[in-house]
Amino acid sequence: MENSITKLFGIKYPIIQAGMVWVSGYKLAAAVSNSGGLGLIGAGSMYPDVLREHIQKCKRATNKPFGVNLPLFYPDLEQVFNIIVEEGVKIVFTSAGNPKLLTKRFQDAGIKVAHVVSSVKFALKSQEAGVDAVVTEGFEAGGHNGREETTTFTLIPMVKEQLKVPLIAAGGIATGRGMLAAMVLGADGVQIGSRFVTSEESSAHQNFKDTVVNTPDGGTELTLKELMPVRLIKNDFYNQVQELYKKKASIEELQDLLGRARAKRGMFEGDLIEGELEIGQVAGLIHKIMPAGKIVEEIMAEFLSAKAQLSSL
Amino acid sequence: MENSITKLFGIKYPIIQAGMVWVSGYKLAAAVSNSGGLGLIGAGSMYPDVLREHIQKCKRATNKPFGVNLPLFYPDLEQVFNIIVEEGVKIVFTSAGNPKLLTKRFQDAGIKVAHVVSSVKFALKSQEAGVDAVVTEGFEAGGHNGREETTTFTLIPMVKEQLKVPLIAAGGIATGRGMLAAMVLGADGVQIGSRFVTSEESSAHQNFKDTVVNTPDGGTELTLKELMPVRLIKNDFYNQVQELYKKKASIEELQDLLGRARAKRGMFEGDLIEGELEIGQVAGLIHKIMPAGKIVEEIMAEFLSAKAQLSSL
Repeated sequence: MENSITKLFGIKYPIIQAGMVWVSGYKLAAAVSNSGGLGLIGAGSMYPDVLREHIQKCKRATNKPFGVNLPLFYPDLEQVFNIIVEEGVKIVFTSAGNPKLLTKRFQDAGIKVAHVVSSVKFALKSQEAGVDAVVTEGFEAGGHNGREETTTFTLIPMVKEQLKVPLIAAGGIATGRGMLAAMVLGADGVQIGSRFVTSEESSAHQNFKDTVVNTPDGGTELTLKELMPVRLIKNDFYNQVQELYKKKASIEELQDLLGRARAKRGMFEGDLIEGELEIGQVAGLIHKIMPAGKIVEEIMAEFLSAKAQLSSL
Repeated sequence: MENSITKLFGIKYPIIQAGMVWVSGYKLAAAVSNSGGLGLIGAGSMYPDVLREHIQKCKRATNKPFGVNLPLFYPDLEQVFNIIVEEGVKIVFTSAGNPKLLTKRFQDAGIKVAHVVSSVKFALKSQEAGVDAVVTEGFEAGGHNGREETTTFTLIPMVKEQLKVPLIAAGGIATGRGMLAAMVLGADGVQIGSRFVTSEESSAHQNFKDTVVNTPDGGTELTLKELMPVRLIKNDFYNQVQELYKKKASIEELQDLLGRARAKRGMFEGDLIEGELEIGQVAGLIHKIMPAGKIVEEIMAEFLSAKAQLSSL
């Protein structure tokens, strides 16, 4: 299966594992890359020296291409830029910021760059900034998300109409059928997050993984829009947020409740009560914790069988 | 192209035109039915005698199957039930209420019933109530919408996992590629709304049609969630609603602003400033006003060519 995404990154399948905070360490990234997809280390929750360690360990754990996801609001951005270049990382996915900020500098260092967007406008800005690929993230995605609330089903074709560089779809995709549907809508590849949260190699806490596989449809909501919109499981912390909304609380009160390190507490330390549990709507389709490599295999097998079945439509 | 939906309704293509308030009169329904899809008259904005007139005119305008969409909060529900039965309508789509309310009574009168839902729970409740098909409506859909905010991309497969009766997908679908993607995800047919708003035969005001074809991605929002969530174009009325939110207005103040007949004013009378303009996110993909029959033809042609192209994936 060769296409613009497999060629761009030198991978076997156009399946990218999202570089998520507290979830995507080198173990997960290497497992996905070893299985033929593209694994990404999530820099967003790592101090610079921790990121360097994960990159070094990833290089030892796989000889296949892997990358780093870098949120552009990262406080030590310059330091992390240097680490990524020094360690010889070949692929970077940037998000949550201006694509002009680092794209050219990364590319001058021989690094391929994809940028995550949630609108046509920012897809085109990313293309203008010279990115090698654009990731469109739909409203159904877990974690931090765009204010436009455009869903995967409508965002992919609206971006595809105008974009010339390869398009990677994210948000709501966890299965081979989802991958095929995204490609029918115009995607060249898919980025999958929630499904890999529940992989054995993810560094999510077991409590969080168990919660994700038991989250039904309607079990998440995009909330805290006054701060930075984030899709969360409706746990006790979420209910506290809703109580504040009922009281018509101020932004400061919301900020006070959120405080710091809620995501770490929920996703990494397994505090299901007070922690922030970031996951996508597609959690309702995820029923099992599996090795990451098996997830890639299962997705590809379903993709191919769904494609074969289409002739009967 | 024969499947469970074409057989259920006796139609050529599994394309259903949504029965929308102020848009779906007999002209639109008959045009869609004559082209091989299933046209629906939208009872929600019609007084009982107006509905009877539209049904009678529709019977004269087509000899193909057509149906009526009936929101179950309709004030003169019993009267409208009798009109539908007396006039020999063979297909009813119910929405916004308990599927147990009328399903058996319609079926006893020889009428096929589909019910619109936005969650797995209500899909299964509809099945229990004995409906012939379920319509899953995603978050991206225009007009009134569910509180779960589950998107088409995730809702279809989550419902499909558990549902035994045929599944019709709605929300975000306007093209042949969209139809194919919905079927890849598990749909047996599609219900299309926004695209038919911009058909020549729709009774939407020309101002509204022109606005829809110029609405970009991000141009709508699901708002007024404290009342009844509704997806609107971000026009002047929408901005007035947002101003109230900024002032942390009460539900009563929102209700006062909304008042009555805002949808009629915007969609039917063409008041783009003070009217409510209900449309789906997929408006961003709609660029042209066309005859409804041509829309059905174009969707089917794109569906077939997208299916053929898949073999190259």
